[in-house]
Amino acid sequence: MFSTQRLNTFFSEMFPESGVVVESVGTRSARMRMCISRRHLRPGETVSGPAMMELADALLHAAILGELGLEWEAVTTNLNINFLRSPLSNKDLVGHCSLIKVGRTQIVGEANIYSDGFSEPVAHAVGTYAIPVER
Amino acid sequence: MFSTQRLNTFFSEMFPESGVVVESVGTRSARMRMCISRRHLRPGETVSGPAMMELADALLHAAILGELGLEWEAVTTNLNINFLRSPLSNKDLVGHCSLIKVGRTQIVGEANIYSDGFSEPVAHAVGTYAIPVER
Amino acid sequence: MFSTQRLNTFFSEMFPESGVVVESVGTRSARMRMCISRRHLRPGETVSGPAMMELADALLHAAILGELGLEWEAVTTNLNINFLRSPLSNKDLVGHCSLIKVGRTQIVGEANIYSDGFSEPVAHAVGTYAIPVER
Amino acid sequence: MFSTQRLNTFFSEMFPESGVVVESVGTRSARMRMCISRRHLRPGETVSGPAMMELADALLHAAILGELGLEWEAVTTNLNINFLRSPLSNKDLVGHCSLIKVGRTQIVGEANIYSDGFSEPVAHAVGTYAIPVER
Repeated sequence: MFSTQRLNTFFSEMFPESGVVVESVGTRSARMRMCISRRHLRPGETVSGPAMMELADALLHAAILGELGLEWEAVTTNLNINFLRSPLSNKDLVGHCSLIKVGRTQIVGEANIYSDGFSEPVAHAVGTYAIPVER
Repeated sequence: MFSTQRLNTFFSEMFPESGVVVESVGTRSARMRMCISRRHLRPGETVSGPAMMELADALLHAAILGELGLEWEAVTTNLNINFLRSPLSNKDLVGHCSLIKVGRTQIVGEANIYSDGFSEPVAHAVGTYAIPVER
Repeated sequence: MFSTQRLNTFFSEMFPESGVVVESVGTRSARMRMCISRRHLRPGETVSGPAMMELADALLHAAILGELGLEWEAVTTNLNINFLRSPLSNKDLVGHCSLIKVGRTQIVGEANIYSDGFSEPVAHAVGTYAIPVER
Repeated sequence: MFSTQRLNTFFSEMFPESGVVVESVGTRSARMRMCISRRHLRPGETVSGPAMMELADALLHAAILGELGLEWEAVTTNLNINFLRSPLSNKDLVGHCSLIKVGRTQIVGEANIYSDGFSEPVAHAVGTYAIPVER
């Protein structure tokens, strides 16, 4: 498995300006942080839904890259996200994900997202990714 | 129904820096444009998935505000999005949505998103929104 | 395009005892009826959620068979369904669907389901189907 | 917490002829079995998608009844299911679920389904349930 640093270089190109940072990548899993800044906020002192969707998608991409290698670019085909609680605007978002199926042409994973320091998730997502068939 | 201009003022606060503009709001429906800039792009000359999710969520919010009035802030509870084709990086995204259920506490709608000028959608989303019960 | 009768023979094997009947198959679309009997009902005089899911899945299979031919068996990979209103227990369910993407390895479609004779849908579903790559 | 037996009596009315049996109900969780018979099968020696959807919905209902009590009937508002592998036709389906949010008006949970005796899930579902506001 390659280093987290190499993955972060990759991510800074793929998700520019998103504020996401890979904290660790494990077996079919990943942990990330989204450093919350003004562009992620919504009126009412909360983090926007699209910011949570971006973190969920980034998490699943990180776990897939960890599984397949940096040369395989998977494409998101479906993302289903449930927003469970309002995130706090003054806390980073943190999340972890795990892949529940790694097939030949399709990968499915789920992600949980939290306000940093809290135990109840603010969002839960399931995503489906296509991998090129000539793999 | 209020003016598109008033809705755009509202949106520029709610979705800051997103590049979304309301083109029209009709009966349980809305049309919007996302002016694509560098922050929406991904390597490989395409628009990022999170940008499409943001447009889908903005579209449904616009139709809901058109239906309920600007004083009701609905909260996204679920968004399910299918990515169907790669958007072109040199075209704006445009989209329209319609509400398929307007209940007392819950609203459900669907949105189609296109690369401007094309007839086949790049993404299709269904979203669920909660409205405060004291409505 | 083959006859509706041939498709119904196929369906009576594929969805046995489901009570579903194909009414018509058009270009990337289908119409079906589910004849509601006691096995579809829930206490409280309504039709069960699983019965609506079965009709949604059958609708999308019918449109796919109409598009690809009876020899291609597509496999459901994702189904997302929103339950919008309670169906009436003394009405059949009817539904129509359309395919929004027909790709080389994946098909995506959406379905609306109604209590027969009513104009507001009781459920809306989006489904994703995999087709064998050697197609 | 009430007995599994009482819950099974309840289920035999709510999901008649489904073949589902509650094995245990824990804190915000449940385990069930679906005894597979001819009505659950599809050509090609596998269990039908709708049977897996029915089990997913039943699992989440069981955990909700365990949490709220038998007098609260929650209504499914959204179910999103990913089909991951083909179940074996000669094995029962077993599944477990956990609730990830128990709110005042909404409950969200996820379920994993397996062919009995196997460790890789055949399906993963996330469901959203509405509870009467006068709770």
